[in-house]
Amino acid sequence: MTTKNDFALSCPIPINDYPYVLLAHGSGGKLMAQLIDKMFTSTFKYKTIEECHDAAVLENPGMRIAFTTDSYVIHPYIFPGGDIGKLAVCGTVNDLAMSGARPLYLALSFILEEGLPMDVLWQIVQSIKNAADAAGVVVVTGDTKVVDKGKGDGIFINTAGIGVLEHDKVIAPRSVGLGDVLMVNGDLARHGMAIMVVREGLEFETSMKSDTAPLNSIVQAMLDGASQPPVSKRPQQ
Amino acid sequence: MTTKNDFALSCPIPINDYPYVLLAHGSGGKLMAQLIDKMFTSTFKYKTIEECHDAAVLENPGMRIAFTTDSYVIHPYIFPGGDIGKLAVCGTVNDLAMSGARPLYLALSFILEEGLPMDVLWQIVQSIKNAADAAGVVVVTGDTKVVDKGKGDGIFINTAGIGVLEHDKVIAPRSVGLGDVLMVNGDLARHGMAIMVVREGLEFETSMKSDTAPLNSIVQAMLDGASQPPVSKRPQQ
Repeated sequence: MTTKNDFALSCPIPINDYPYVLLAHGSGGKLMAQLIDKMFTSTFKYKTIEECHDAAVLENPGMRIAFTTDSYVIHPYIFPGGDIGKLAVCGTVNDLAMSGARPLYLALSFILEEGLPMDVLWQIVQSIKNAADAAGVVVVTGDTKVVDKGKGDGIFINTAGIGVLEHDKVIAPRSVGLGDVLMVNGDLARHGMAIMVVREGLEFETSMKSDTAPLNSIVQAMLDGASQPPVSKRPQQ
Repeated sequence: MTTKNDFALSCPIPINDYPYVLLAHGSGGKLMAQLIDKMFTSTFKYKTIEECHDAAVLENPGMRIAFTTDSYVIHPYIFPGGDIGKLAVCGTVNDLAMSGARPLYLALSFILEEGLPMDVLWQIVQSIKNAADAAGVVVVTGDTKVVDKGKGDGIFINTAGIGVLEHDKVIAPRSVGLGDVLMVNGDLARHGMAIMVVREGLEFETSMKSDTAPLNSIVQAMLDGASQPPVSKRPQQ
């Protein structure tokens, strides 16, 4: 298990000079360039990140694409079984998977509150990288804003994602019908309870960990194994 | 010119019952459904919005796509010449245009602070719709979160965007070279000054308005008029 100190030791920002996020880390000058270069670009290395352009230019991913966005505002932002970074990757990957898409690309946007400990940011960035690797997606573009202390909540993350549909099935709420089988792949509400335990100081006989995970490989296996013809389009109400 | 009262009159949320955004507007229940249905879905009407799915499924936009994200945390969120909604659309549209792409799709994500006046949100949503129409883009998916009072700054908006590259030119920082002509399409720093004027209470002899605008049609005209062969790829440093 990685401790807070391991992250602090390897954080690429001179932690003695900048132990906390400053407004200047979002104001477009040298400190912002340092943060982006040393912490984000060096972690996410993809060619479109290194290009430092306004947008990532990407090859055509397929005939149909899925596009989604989600902002993550969870508190506490580090919790048993995960953190806001892992959650932001898995949530968006899973939104794409739930549309029957293979997740490919993520856009990563931070709203940091002045005073956020720099090693916490580093820990979250590493968690994003690990979760993206585990899910087989790449962070291709991003954005960083810093807001005044008292105008945020440590860290908010937005992840937008693009995936590709490699089949002609319609995986959508309107395709659900009577007689369909409902599959549950884990405990219901485990993540929510894990958050509530730490937020409200609840106590249980067992420890409660979030089960945050990318589900795209499970969905892909289901798509690959589906022998039925494409679900026919049902009329919208 | 539209006044605050015009927006209040036409706001589709029962403004006497809910004059301010509540935490319940983000908690997944009836009030959140009301907000999304009446304010967002009814405004943005696109088929992928009405589908109410985790992601928007879209037709293949072309051989190369551009993908970008930006969070908008500006204060005041309504300013002379625009507001955070217009800014969020134009900023992302322009990021795509600056990559040589024709902007197509936007993903729209709100982080609302408990207590935001509902008619202000309505005004901003209408502004987003107008700016998207003016730029020729559609909002295809979105997300809404509400944070505790004191944990945000009224409204933060993230817009992620997808555009299509309909040419084989490389419009990027690495394509800029000695002898290139620099074109300036308006006053430098006008938007920033307009914000500072209202934020800091500065006074000038003339009124200062933000020139926030979508620039994609200007860029498209330049791309259409370019008779030169594609800018050759220069080696990256």
